[in-house]
Amino acid sequence: MNKISKAAIIGGGVIGAGWIARLIENGVDVNVFDPASDAQQKVNAVLVNSREAYAKLTDGERRSEGAVQFFSGTQKAVADADLIVESVPERLDIKQTVYAEIEHYASSDALIASSTSGIMPSDLQSKMRHPERLFVAHPFNPVYLLPLVELVAGKKTDPKTIERASEIYKWLGMHPLHVKKEIEAFIADRLLEAIWRESLWLVKDGIATTQDIDDAVRYGFGLRYAQMGVFDTYRVAGGEAGMRHFMAQFGPCLQWPWTKLMDVPEFNDELVDLITNQSDEQSGHMSIREMEKIRDDNLITILRGLKDNRWGAGETLGEYEKSLST
Amino acid sequence: MNKISKAAIIGGGVIGAGWIARLIENGVDVNVFDPASDAQQKVNAVLVNSREAYAKLTDGERRSEGAVQFFSGTQKAVADADLIVESVPERLDIKQTVYAEIEHYASSDALIASSTSGIMPSDLQSKMRHPERLFVAHPFNPVYLLPLVELVAGKKTDPKTIERASEIYKWLGMHPLHVKKEIEAFIADRLLEAIWRESLWLVKDGIATTQDIDDAVRYGFGLRYAQMGVFDTYRVAGGEAGMRHFMAQFGPCLQWPWTKLMDVPEFNDELVDLITNQSDEQSGHMSIREMEKIRDDNLITILRGLKDNRWGAGETLGEYEKSLST
Repeated sequence: MNKISKAAIIGGGVIGAGWIARLIENGVDVNVFDPASDAQQKVNAVLVNSREAYAKLTDGERRSEGAVQFFSGTQKAVADADLIVESVPERLDIKQTVYAEIEHYASSDALIASSTSGIMPSDLQSKMRHPERLFVAHPFNPVYLLPLVELVAGKKTDPKTIERASEIYKWLGMHPLHVKKEIEAFIADRLLEAIWRESLWLVKDGIATTQDIDDAVRYGFGLRYAQMGVFDTYRVAGGEAGMRHFMAQFGPCLQWPWTKLMDVPEFNDELVDLITNQSDEQSGHMSIREMEKIRDDNLITILRGLKDNRWGAGETLGEYEKSLST
Repeated sequence: MNKISKAAIIGGGVIGAGWIARLIENGVDVNVFDPASDAQQKVNAVLVNSREAYAKLTDGERRSEGAVQFFSGTQKAVADADLIVESVPERLDIKQTVYAEIEHYASSDALIASSTSGIMPSDLQSKMRHPERLFVAHPFNPVYLLPLVELVAGKKTDPKTIERASEIYKWLGMHPLHVKKEIEAFIADRLLEAIWRESLWLVKDGIATTQDIDDAVRYGFGLRYAQMGVFDTYRVAGGEAGMRHFMAQFGPCLQWPWTKLMDVPEFNDELVDLITNQSDEQSGHMSIREMEKIRDDNLITILRGLKDNRWGAGETLGEYEKSLST
């Protein structure tokens, strides 16, 4: 089974709305529950972006758009769903309360996916009656375009749950990455956290502005990361002598006195002001909507342009397009 | 003055050869000195790649290709050069010896650029007779395609040197980023080092393979980094509430116990074997040349596709193309 016909989304923030967008653009009907009074309006704003994006993403045939229905509680939203996605705030107690309610009303074989970016699935599932069907499916913003989704099992998750989930996310045009050991923050956010800390130090110490750092990334290694990642980049840098040669050259640098990495910058108002003001100066002339539109157009350009031309295994836009036309 | 007619490259490794490629593709004649017996052969292999790449980079008119001449010593290589690029191994004593020789034979107003990725320019220039014309111009592989070049002044560098250099690199289609405070490893490599360390931990601890990490990057945040960088990504994530809202949400995470960042993995044979073997398994089916070709094709697709569609200030392929046709 690699297909679902109905999903439920609990929590319609940026991530929840992104899931709704990806699901309906791939022909899945979606039930939504979010207690916020402006939830529907915010979700619809995301759907405007995603509809524009998908219209440009592929020239081939697409599945017909799924329907979105808003509900005033969990009960009706989850009753007939094959996949239930929890995208509520990052607090274990809130999430556990949501799962209790979901389990009360959902079909016992419905999959339950948490969008958490950091909490371990073993903690999430610890109070559940049917913990074997809970897993983490951690997506990246914008969820309707970025292919990566990290799948993480808790101690009580059935391996078949991950297998089934993996098929579903591939069918949704994503690249499911099964994180084999359960750790906080999984893989991508560990890397992002490392860069974020170092970036904060650079700004705090007046070495670079937020604009300098963004330029260093987008005119430099960001262009490699979009296609290669960390290790393949260095494999090429090592030349025909390969990875061992690169490690021999670069490894000892780890001992150099770049000590900032070893410490955490104090997170105070001064730092927040510094970053916020620099960011306003850098990009305050654009609305977030305008920025999202440029981002989405660029993502589509890259996804369409690279298509199958990436290294290694894994789902690409080319494979996704093939699956759409069959 | 924003134009040079002759450059000298001292050291024809991956970076030196990349500089040669960018310079000749932009109409600059280049003199090369590298004592290695296979230097000419290795440089020519890079030039095969760069010629193919530039033929695809723009449909517009280009400058006619500069000539490359190899010399058997520094003297004749530097005598008539406007810009002298030092790309020798990363050892201060070697570099200082090279500068002494350059100064002996070069015109006193020739600019001297070091390609070092980590040594501070104040140290590089400390024994020079005319230190005011030395600066760091740190490029990124492949130098002939990636726009970023970090410009760093030492204590004795004339501010006019940086201004002039900045014009030259723009004219070469690059994005010069003036690093305002002198620190070891500058900006981009600080960020890369942070990611590299965390990646080594993830592999060492068996959380992820090199393939997992590369996939997490290239199907995920790498696609954002190619256009947005670190801070603008989070600005958008904060939504209309902006950067301050994002910081309030995400800031406290800095205190979470992701302790691996605070330590350096021991760099021993076991770790080198682990990484090397995983990398071989991941990409050993391709030669480095094949990987370079895929990389270059993808970079051209991204650079052409995004063209002027990036945020913020800075040189883009669109501006470069305009400058070529005038």
